[in-house]
Amino acid sequence: MRTISCLQSDLQGVGVEHHALDCLVHALQDFGEVWEEVECMLASSKYVWMSNMTPLEPGGNLVILGSGWGGYSLLKKLDTSKWESVTLVSPRNYFLFTPLLPSVTVGTNEPRSIIEPLRKIVMKKNKKTGLQNTRYLEVDAKHLDLARKICYCEDITSIKATDDLLEVPYDKLVVAVGAQPNTMGVPGVLEYTHFLKEMDHARLIRKNVLDSFETACTATSDERKIELLHFVVVGGGPTGVEFAAELRDFIREEISQAYWEVAHLAKVSVIQSAENILNTFDAAISRYATDHFKRIDIEVVKNSRVKAVEASAVVVQDMATKEEHRIPFGVCVWAAGIAPRPFTKDLISQLKDCQPENGRLLKTTPYLEVLGGKGDLFAIGDCAGVAEPELLPLAESLFDEADINKDGKISFEEYEVIYRKIRER
Amino acid sequence: MRTISCLQSDLQGVGVEHHALDCLVHALQDFGEVWEEVECMLASSKYVWMSNMTPLEPGGNLVILGSGWGGYSLLKKLDTSKWESVTLVSPRNYFLFTPLLPSVTVGTNEPRSIIEPLRKIVMKKNKKTGLQNTRYLEVDAKHLDLARKICYCEDITSIKATDDLLEVPYDKLVVAVGAQPNTMGVPGVLEYTHFLKEMDHARLIRKNVLDSFETACTATSDERKIELLHFVVVGGGPTGVEFAAELRDFIREEISQAYWEVAHLAKVSVIQSAENILNTFDAAISRYATDHFKRIDIEVVKNSRVKAVEASAVVVQDMATKEEHRIPFGVCVWAAGIAPRPFTKDLISQLKDCQPENGRLLKTTPYLEVLGGKGDLFAIGDCAGVAEPELLPLAESLFDEADINKDGKISFEEYEVIYRKIRER
Repeated sequence: MRTISCLQSDLQGVGVEHHALDCLVHALQDFGEVWEEVECMLASSKYVWMSNMTPLEPGGNLVILGSGWGGYSLLKKLDTSKWESVTLVSPRNYFLFTPLLPSVTVGTNEPRSIIEPLRKIVMKKNKKTGLQNTRYLEVDAKHLDLARKICYCEDITSIKATDDLLEVPYDKLVVAVGAQPNTMGVPGVLEYTHFLKEMDHARLIRKNVLDSFETACTATSDERKIELLHFVVVGGGPTGVEFAAELRDFIREEISQAYWEVAHLAKVSVIQSAENILNTFDAAISRYATDHFKRIDIEVVKNSRVKAVEASAVVVQDMATKEEHRIPFGVCVWAAGIAPRPFTKDLISQLKDCQPENGRLLKTTPYLEVLGGKGDLFAIGDCAGVAEPELLPLAESLFDEADINKDGKISFEEYEVIYRKIRER
Repeated sequence: MRTISCLQSDLQGVGVEHHALDCLVHALQDFGEVWEEVECMLASSKYVWMSNMTPLEPGGNLVILGSGWGGYSLLKKLDTSKWESVTLVSPRNYFLFTPLLPSVTVGTNEPRSIIEPLRKIVMKKNKKTGLQNTRYLEVDAKHLDLARKICYCEDITSIKATDDLLEVPYDKLVVAVGAQPNTMGVPGVLEYTHFLKEMDHARLIRKNVLDSFETACTATSDERKIELLHFVVVGGGPTGVEFAAELRDFIREEISQAYWEVAHLAKVSVIQSAENILNTFDAAISRYATDHFKRIDIEVVKNSRVKAVEASAVVVQDMATKEEHRIPFGVCVWAAGIAPRPFTKDLISQLKDCQPENGRLLKTTPYLEVLGGKGDLFAIGDCAGVAEPELLPLAESLFDEADINKDGKISFEEYEVIYRKIRER
């Protein structure tokens, strides 16, 4: 949280909407992580960014795309009275508290308990301001017409008003559409595995886990029962690990009584491409988690990649020996990270002159302004990333400025002078 | 309830399993209704039935098909220790409290609150008896082999143990499979309307009602909004009426705030083939309900039949004038009664020598023994009906017996004698 609060204080006094950024900073942990890397260059980077920065003037029509951590938190903190209209666009009419999603798969939490209807916050905003200027549209953003400043949206639910795309005009637009599960191009993932990113995914996993146990009770051979009761999680990141642990507890505490005939045959496995699970965390945590899984009988299939998924088995390759083998499953959950949504890719390609080549994230300034968006586009969350300044030229110019006596070295006195200058800026 | 308790006391001392029948009697209101008609002939009817009645000896393998009011209640009251094994077979692994289903469509009740997992009652039974002889199988009964006494079942969920049918042998079998929604052969019903008989139906209706409001918020013309917010219920029986009333309250109390832009355009209509709704109830109740709906702005389209359902409209015919007109809808709920399941029809046709021609219900004795089932088959609930005894010959023989002096008339004294005799029997 140190980096986060540092960032916050740094943004005070900058001509962007404080409420919104304050909230973004809180909400987006990954933004904080990127920040960690550029923190030491903060003062210097301002040279680059500040020159291109147009302070954001509230007013006009604000459109927010997405109802996740980015979009929802932004709307919650936003002073909507400063805008002519505020429109939240999302195919999902509620905010989902994703960290508790794994617990819904085993019934520890009810779906209703981990969502917040968007209509509630919209009503609150309109009541507070006395204006009816805030609204929500249950449609999916498909494409931006940057010249005409129109967002084209499609109703992707079963009941549609029309077959045409809906045109939503904007003055300022915040892209907070998140990301989608990453299949890594592995065949069979879409057909035979479950993602765990939305409420419907959690419901379906719950249904299928119980179905596996019910079906095992009707199976005639122990071999088939063992196959049906093998729950395979692909990916040892936070989602996969959390789900595997919840499922194991559920089997131990609930299933073992209700399905006493077959519960002892159940097993949970995690397939992980690295040596340990949670390998983006501190090495000690990562090792501890792996050891703990061993103690509680969750098998970690280490250093292995899934090459293909079949109707009821994954084909796994050992990354060292390159040997392949089939692992049968009853239910397979695919938690192998995220990939950009088509909307994000489309926007990146529209802005290709200002965005890095083959980018997977909408690159922004540290003030979350989309590079190439002409001050009208902002992006936050899983679809966005702060562009790192080009460090080498900056470092060279800083060094030149610091080396007052031009002896090719920076003495402590020289360092003190340049440090003070940077702080002042 | 008078007829019910009378029936109960009458069954005391008969050699059938008391617990089960006691429970059946409580559970099955429709059985009570049929009973009302034959009650006055109860004593006489015993002449016919008792002669064919083999007292049911517990023991052997009991199979119960169905987890609704009939099957679940039977298992709950059954002394399972008296059987070698008791197997409950049903594609639905919970008991559903159907009277509260309409309230789930609007969120007044949560799905979890109106179900009772079968595993719970199975565990309880096994714990109580100390035997592990009671089990549940999540499969759908497809066909009975009456000669070999085997019930063939299919796993109709997504995870299957095998593609073969499962063979479940029985000594005694209770058919409590219920019924399915009746489309009346109207084209488009399966494609474009919602039934309200299972939990998934209620969930889908809820989703689509809210989707209609969300979509109406994106519609550009008032005309289209009005179409989207027209909720049409086909059938003015208890299910349709209950749902229409719940939905109207939901719109009035919740929707009107959350969807303030469009809520005033919403309307609920009930299409009914008779003059009043609830027309199987007492005429005063039926009239009152119809008037009440008028007062609370639910339109009852009287004396009308649905001839066809299109993607977003029903084609309705006025039964008097024969004129047809289209009624557009956002969501249409089909609550036009029930029809026999394929399993029931198959069994009736197998027993055609003993069952009435073109029957829609498995006809049973008043002791719920299936006619033609050779004492091994029993049936309860929506799939079954007690066969009415042939009254004329019975009445004639009773009259002959009563007319002691053979003068062709029954005096009060003669009536007293025969009445006392019947009571004694």
